[in-house]
Amino acid sequence: MKSKLMQMLEERKEEMIEIRRYLHEHPELSFQEENTSRYIEEFYKGKDVKVDRKVGGGNGLIVTITGGKPGKTIGLRADFDALPIFEETDVPFKSKNPGVMHACAHDGHTAYLMILADCLIQLKDEIPGTIKIIHQPAEEVPPGGAIGMIESGLLDDLDNIFGIHLLPMGPSGVVGYNSGFVFPGRAYFKLKVQGVGGHGSSPHLANDAIVAGAHFVTAVQTVISRRLNPFDMGVVTIGSFDGKGTFNVIKDSVEIEGDVRAMTDETRELIETEIRRISRGIEEEFNVTCELTYTPDYPPLYNNPELTEMVAEVLKNAIDKDITEVREFPKLSPSEDFAHYAKKFPACFFYICCTPKGVEKPYFNHHPKFDIDEDALLVAAKAVGQVVCGYYGI
Amino acid sequence: MKSKLMQMLEERKEEMIEIRRYLHEHPELSFQEENTSRYIEEFYKGKDVKVDRKVGGGNGLIVTITGGKPGKTIGLRADFDALPIFEETDVPFKSKNPGVMHACAHDGHTAYLMILADCLIQLKDEIPGTIKIIHQPAEEVPPGGAIGMIESGLLDDLDNIFGIHLLPMGPSGVVGYNSGFVFPGRAYFKLKVQGVGGHGSSPHLANDAIVAGAHFVTAVQTVISRRLNPFDMGVVTIGSFDGKGTFNVIKDSVEIEGDVRAMTDETRELIETEIRRISRGIEEEFNVTCELTYTPDYPPLYNNPELTEMVAEVLKNAIDKDITEVREFPKLSPSEDFAHYAKKFPACFFYICCTPKGVEKPYFNHHPKFDIDEDALLVAAKAVGQVVCGYYGI
Amino acid sequence: MKSKLMQMLEERKEEMIEIRRYLHEHPELSFQEENTSRYIEEFYKGKDVKVDRKVGGGNGLIVTITGGKPGKTIGLRADFDALPIFEETDVPFKSKNPGVMHACAHDGHTAYLMILADCLIQLKDEIPGTIKIIHQPAEEVPPGGAIGMIESGLLDDLDNIFGIHLLPMGPSGVVGYNSGFVFPGRAYFKLKVQGVGGHGSSPHLANDAIVAGAHFVTAVQTVISRRLNPFDMGVVTIGSFDGKGTFNVIKDSVEIEGDVRAMTDETRELIETEIRRISRGIEEEFNVTCELTYTPDYPPLYNNPELTEMVAEVLKNAIDKDITEVREFPKLSPSEDFAHYAKKFPACFFYICCTPKGVEKPYFNHHPKFDIDEDALLVAAKAVGQVVCGYYGI
Amino acid sequence: MKSKLMQMLEERKEEMIEIRRYLHEHPELSFQEENTSRYIEEFYKGKDVKVDRKVGGGNGLIVTITGGKPGKTIGLRADFDALPIFEETDVPFKSKNPGVMHACAHDGHTAYLMILADCLIQLKDEIPGTIKIIHQPAEEVPPGGAIGMIESGLLDDLDNIFGIHLLPMGPSGVVGYNSGFVFPGRAYFKLKVQGVGGHGSSPHLANDAIVAGAHFVTAVQTVISRRLNPFDMGVVTIGSFDGKGTFNVIKDSVEIEGDVRAMTDETRELIETEIRRISRGIEEEFNVTCELTYTPDYPPLYNNPELTEMVAEVLKNAIDKDITEVREFPKLSPSEDFAHYAKKFPACFFYICCTPKGVEKPYFNHHPKFDIDEDALLVAAKAVGQVVCGYYGI
Repeated sequence: MKSKLMQMLEERKEEMIEIRRYLHEHPELSFQEENTSRYIEEFYKGKDVKVDRKVGGGNGLIVTITGGKPGKTIGLRADFDALPIFEETDVPFKSKNPGVMHACAHDGHTAYLMILADCLIQLKDEIPGTIKIIHQPAEEVPPGGAIGMIESGLLDDLDNIFGIHLLPMGPSGVVGYNSGFVFPGRAYFKLKVQGVGGHGSSPHLANDAIVAGAHFVTAVQTVISRRLNPFDMGVVTIGSFDGKGTFNVIKDSVEIEGDVRAMTDETRELIETEIRRISRGIEEEFNVTCELTYTPDYPPLYNNPELTEMVAEVLKNAIDKDITEVREFPKLSPSEDFAHYAKKFPACFFYICCTPKGVEKPYFNHHPKFDIDEDALLVAAKAVGQVVCGYYGI
Repeated sequence: MKSKLMQMLEERKEEMIEIRRYLHEHPELSFQEENTSRYIEEFYKGKDVKVDRKVGGGNGLIVTITGGKPGKTIGLRADFDALPIFEETDVPFKSKNPGVMHACAHDGHTAYLMILADCLIQLKDEIPGTIKIIHQPAEEVPPGGAIGMIESGLLDDLDNIFGIHLLPMGPSGVVGYNSGFVFPGRAYFKLKVQGVGGHGSSPHLANDAIVAGAHFVTAVQTVISRRLNPFDMGVVTIGSFDGKGTFNVIKDSVEIEGDVRAMTDETRELIETEIRRISRGIEEEFNVTCELTYTPDYPPLYNNPELTEMVAEVLKNAIDKDITEVREFPKLSPSEDFAHYAKKFPACFFYICCTPKGVEKPYFNHHPKFDIDEDALLVAAKAVGQVVCGYYGI
Repeated sequence: MKSKLMQMLEERKEEMIEIRRYLHEHPELSFQEENTSRYIEEFYKGKDVKVDRKVGGGNGLIVTITGGKPGKTIGLRADFDALPIFEETDVPFKSKNPGVMHACAHDGHTAYLMILADCLIQLKDEIPGTIKIIHQPAEEVPPGGAIGMIESGLLDDLDNIFGIHLLPMGPSGVVGYNSGFVFPGRAYFKLKVQGVGGHGSSPHLANDAIVAGAHFVTAVQTVISRRLNPFDMGVVTIGSFDGKGTFNVIKDSVEIEGDVRAMTDETRELIETEIRRISRGIEEEFNVTCELTYTPDYPPLYNNPELTEMVAEVLKNAIDKDITEVREFPKLSPSEDFAHYAKKFPACFFYICCTPKGVEKPYFNHHPKFDIDEDALLVAAKAVGQVVCGYYGI
Repeated sequence: MKSKLMQMLEERKEEMIEIRRYLHEHPELSFQEENTSRYIEEFYKGKDVKVDRKVGGGNGLIVTITGGKPGKTIGLRADFDALPIFEETDVPFKSKNPGVMHACAHDGHTAYLMILADCLIQLKDEIPGTIKIIHQPAEEVPPGGAIGMIESGLLDDLDNIFGIHLLPMGPSGVVGYNSGFVFPGRAYFKLKVQGVGGHGSSPHLANDAIVAGAHFVTAVQTVISRRLNPFDMGVVTIGSFDGKGTFNVIKDSVEIEGDVRAMTDETRELIETEIRRISRGIEEEFNVTCELTYTPDYPPLYNNPELTEMVAEVLKNAIDKDITEVREFPKLSPSEDFAHYAKKFPACFFYICCTPKGVEKPYFNHHPKFDIDEDALLVAAKAVGQVVCGYYGI
C-alpha cells in the first residue's frame, strides 16, 4: 500500500499548495477559527468517513477513518490557528485579514494533512486499524486547543499519536526527530506587590512597592542559578514590571508578569515551588502583600523513545526522492500544546524542514516575514504517510 | 508707625478674605496664571508705586515701594499659582476651574501681601528704605517661578528677603520659625535602561532591561544607607519603574524616574554623584545603555541664622492679640522655590499656622480637602508687618 | 565656695596629671580593671567619706560626700576601663600592658574626678546636699558597667547626674554641650544563615548560604533608605560576613554580625523590628534557617534640656581663664553607656576639648596614636566644679 | 589476538587487585607522588619497552609499546594521585598515610592499566601500531598533571587517546559511554573587593566592602539565569566570601572565591566575559577596587563522536561474561583533566561501574567511605583491551 499512497500524494502536491495558500490568505486567530473550521468541514463533505465537528465545544474536527481490518488506533494531528502579526511578506496570497498571519506554518500543517487524510480514506480497506485525523484549533494561545480535543472523549481509544511541525532548520527534504523531552513546558505567573503609597520625601510613612518588586526580580534569578540542576533546562523571565507612576510619589503597588519554561515536569514543579516561596519571603521581608497567580499551561513535550526510534527507522529506510535526509535534531525552546496529547498517549512529534530555496538565513516562525518552501508540504505528507505504513506494517 | 500699620491691617481683614476667596475660586496652574497676574496688576492701578509686570518673561509682578528716607532694600514674597487637583471641599467659593485648586494656600499668601503692600504704600514716607513686593508665579512646578524673578535683575539690590507659608500645624495665631536649612532641596532624575528585547524562552539572545533596572533600584538604596552622613537628611525615591510589557517577551528597555531630597548642597551633590556612578556601574555590569537625565531643581532653603533670630525676637516681643504664640518648628520635608532667593540674599522664611477651628486632624497642603482658618490671613499680614517694622526699627 | 574650689583645683593640676599618667601606664580591659579599682580605693583611704567598693558585683566604686546641709543628691561619673589596642604613641608613660591602651581618655576622666572629689570632700560642709562620685568600670564593652552601678541601688536617690568626655574637637579650654538626644543608642546582632553544603558543580543538591546572606545584606539597606524618617539618625552596619570556605564547595552557613545606631528609642525599635522581619523573610525566600540574636545595648543618650541649659549658662558665665569658650556641639556618632544613667535620672553629659597643642589634625579617640593636652584635665575639673557650684548656688 | 589478551587478563585478575591494594595503602597527594611513580617504574623494569620517567618535569611515566607492524599510535591513560581525605573505610589495606586517601579510584585505574600494559607488551608483535601507556600524576589539583605530559612532546604523534573512570553508578560489569561534551570544564576565580574601613557608626567616612561584595554575589547570579543558553550547562558558585571582621567596624575589603563549570568552550568564555564585566561594574557602582584573578583550568571534556561510537560498538559486540551491559550514560558534573588530551587528540573517555556488591546506595568518589568492587578492575582491563583490539582490528 505504501507505494500506492506515495504516488497518490505526489499527484496531489499542487492541491496541497492551493489549500495552504487559501488558508494563508484567510488566517483566523486562536479560538476564533470559525471559517477555517467550516472550510475543513466542507472538504470532507461527501467522503466516506465520520466527521465530528465543534469538538470539545470549539472549532476542532475529528475525522475517523475506520480501516478494513481491526487493529490499533492512531491519531494524526495538525493545528490550524494563526497569529496576531501583521504580515510583511510579498507573497501573492498574503493575508487578507490585516494583523493576522499564518506565521507559524499551521496553514501548511493543515493542508498536507487534509490531502493525506483523503488518500488514506481512499485506501482505508487496506488499513488494519483506525486512523483519527485531528484538526485542532488554538495551538498558539494558552490553555490551547488540545485540551478540548482530549476532553471530548473522542480520542480516548488512541494507542498512539503523531504530529509534525514545519521549521526552517534546513532545506525541504530534511526530516528531524528527537527523543524524550523535546519542547519545554511553560507556565505563566502574575504577581501583584501591594505596599503603601506616599510622598516621595517621606518613605517612612509609605511602603515602597517598587523596592520590594525589584528585590523579587533579583531574588528570582537564584531559582535558575542555584535551585536548578545545571544539566536541566529552565527559564524564568520577568517580561513585565508595571510600576509606572510619578517621580515624587512612592508607588503603592506594582504588577509583575513572568514566563517559565522547563524541560521536565520535575523542573516545572521545582520552579513553581521556588517562585511561590520567594513571593512569600518578599511579603515578610518588606511587609507587603504579594498576590501570586501561577498558571502552568503547556507541559513539556515528551516523545516516547520507542515510538520515536520506530519513526526514525521507518524514515531512514524510506527510499524516497523527496525525503533526502533524516537526522537527530537538538531540543528546541518554544512550547507546543501537542504536549497535552503526548502526556496521555505515547507520541512522536517530529520536524519537516522548509527553508525557502536560496535563502541562507531564513526568518523563523512567528516573524512577520516568515515563509516556507512549499515543496515541504509533500515531504510532510509522505513522511507521515511512511510512518503510518511503517506503523501498521503495510 | 508699627501700631498704625497693625490697626490698618485689622481694619482690612475682611478685604484680605475677599481677595483670597476670589483667587480660590479662580485658580490657575503654574506658568499659566495670566488672569491672576492681571487681577493683581489691577489692584495696584492708581496707587503711588512702580509696578513691574511680566517680570522675567512670565506672569510675575514686582511692586517697588520707595520709602521716604534712604535705607536698606528688602523683598516680601508671595506666590500665586495653583495645583492640578480636583477640589473636594464644600466651601461656597470652591474652584470654578475644575481640576485646578488652590490647595497650597498661595491664595492666602497673595491676599495678605496685597493688603499689607497697600498699607505700606500709604505709610511709605515713614519707611527708611525700599520694599519690593514680589508676586511670584509658578512655585509648584520646577524649575519654579523664582528663577525668572531673580534673573530679571529687578531684585539685584535686595539686602534681605522674607516670605511665609500658611501651614495647618497649629491654630491661627501660632507663628513658627527655624534657622539654618529648613526645607530640603530637590532633584529629579530619569533613567532609561536600554537592553535588547527577545523571546522569553531565550534570555541569552536578549539582554533583560528589567533585571538591570531592578539591580539599579537595589543598588541605589545604598546611597542613603551607606554614603550619607547618618546625621544628614537625604532621600532617594524611585517613584516610577515603567517596565510594562508582555509576560513572555524579554523587555528591551525600562524607564525609571526618581526624586531626590537633601537638606544641604553637599548632600545634594553627593547624591547626584553617587546616582551617576551607579548608573555607569549598571551599564558596565549588565552591558546595557543607561541614559540618565539628572535635574537638580530647588536648592535646600537656608534661613540666615541672624535674620531668623531677629524675626523670632521681633515676633516674640510683639504684644499683639492676633499673634498668640511664636515657637521653633522642626525641619520640614517638602521643597520650596523660595530657596532660590535664599541662596542669593540672606533670607528668612517662616510659618503662619492656619488649622481650621475645631478641626483636630486637618488635611494638609496638597490634599483635595485642604482648607484654612481665614483668621490666619491677618496673622500673616501682622507678622510680616511686625518684621518689617522691627527690621527698620520703626 | 566656688572661688575656693577653683583655686584648690588649680593647685592640684600636677597631681591630676600624675594620676592620669599612672593610669595610662597601667591600663586594664573592661570588666578586668581590678588593679585600677584598688588604686582608686587606695586614694580615698583615710578620707572622711563613705566608699562603696565592688559595687554591683564589679570593679566600680561609689564615694558618697554628704554635705553640711540637706539638699539634692547628684552624681558625678567617670569611667576607668581601657581598650584592646596596641599603643603607638611615644609618651614616656606609654602602656606597660601591651595590647591594652587608655585610648579613650578614661584615664583623664578618672584623674580629674579623683582630685575634684578630694576637694569637694574638704569643702563638704558648705555643700547643701549629697554628691556621689561614681567611678565606673567597663564603659567600652556591652552591656557596660553603668548597669551594675545602677542596679546596686546605691544611686536610687540621685536627683541629677553629670558626666564629661574628653574629645580632641578643639584646643584645651573649649567646652561643648548639646541638648536632647546627643549620642545614638546601639544594638548588636548576629545572624547565622544555615543552608546546606555541597559540591560547587551541583547547586541544586545544596542550598547556598552565601547567596542567601548576600540578599540579607542588600535587603537590610532598605531599613535605612526606606523605613527610617529621613530626619532621624539611624545606621545599620554589617561589620562581619564570615563566609570563608573553599572555592568549589557550596557554603553551608555564614555568620553575619551587625551594628545598629539610632538617636531615639523609637528608631531603635523600628530598626530591630525591620531586621527581624528581613531575617524571617530571607528564611522563607531561600529556604534557609536564620538564627538571629539581637542585643540592644546602650540606649540613646538624652541630655535633659533644662539641665543642659543650666550647665551652659553656668559655664558661659564662669569667668575663668581656663574655660575659654563654651559652645553648642553637634550630635556625635559614638555610643556611651552614660545613657543608662540618663534614662533613669535627668542628666547632662558634656564635652571637654583636649586637642594636643600645635596639632591640627589630632588622632581621635580609639586610635593607637590618640593623645590629649593634659591642660584639659584642669578644665574638666573646673567645669564640673562650676556646674556643681552653680547647681547648688554656692 | 583478542581472545588471547582476554584470557591473559583473566589470569592476572588477582595481580591487579594486589597492585590496587598496595597503591591504596600508600596514597600520595597530587604533585607529590614520588613513591608511586617509583613503584610503577619498578614494575616495568626489565620489560621490553621504552619507559620515559619524570615526564614533563613531574612524576609521570610514559611506556611506549612499539607494535610489530607500523600503524596508528594511541594513548591509554590512567592517573595515580590521591586526595587529602581521612579514610573512613574498614578495608584491611586502609591508607597508611593519614589524611591522604585513594578516594577517587585512581589506584584501580593504575592497577588495571599496568597489567593490561604488561599483556600488550607480551603481545606486541601482533599490534599494527604503537601504544603509549600514560601513567599520569596530579589529576586532582589544577592545573593538573595532563598538561606536563602533553607539553613533554612525547605524545605529539598520538592519533587517538582513551581513558576510563571507575564510578559506582552500577554493578561491576556495566560499562557506560557518552558522546560529545561529557564532563564540564572548570575555572577558578578570586575577587578582592577593596573599599575603605571605618567606624560602624559613620558609613559616609568609609566605603563598605561587604555591601559591594554582596551586590557582586547577587549580580553574578544573572550570568547563569540570563546570559546562558538555557539548553547549555553552566554553574557559577561563590564558595567563599571572606568578610570576617568586627561587628562595629566597617570592613575595608572582602575576598570572594568562585568556581565556574561549563560544558562547552563557548560557555566557558561567555561566563568569564560576564564575570569580568560584573567585576568592573561593581568597581564603578560602589567606587571600590576589584582585583580579579580568573584562572580557567580544565576545559570541557569532549568525546569524539565517531571514536565514541566505535568504542560503544566494540563493547556492545564483545561477547564477554565480564562485560554484562554497555549503555549510554548521562553527562556528569565533575571535571577531569583528561580533557586536555581530548582537546588535542580525538579521544574517548568512558566509565567502568564499580558499585560494591550488595550495596544499594554506594558512597561516591571523594567520600571518605568510598569503596569499589574489585571485580571492576578486570572489567576495565578487558574493556580497554577490547577497544584496543577493535581499534586495530585484531
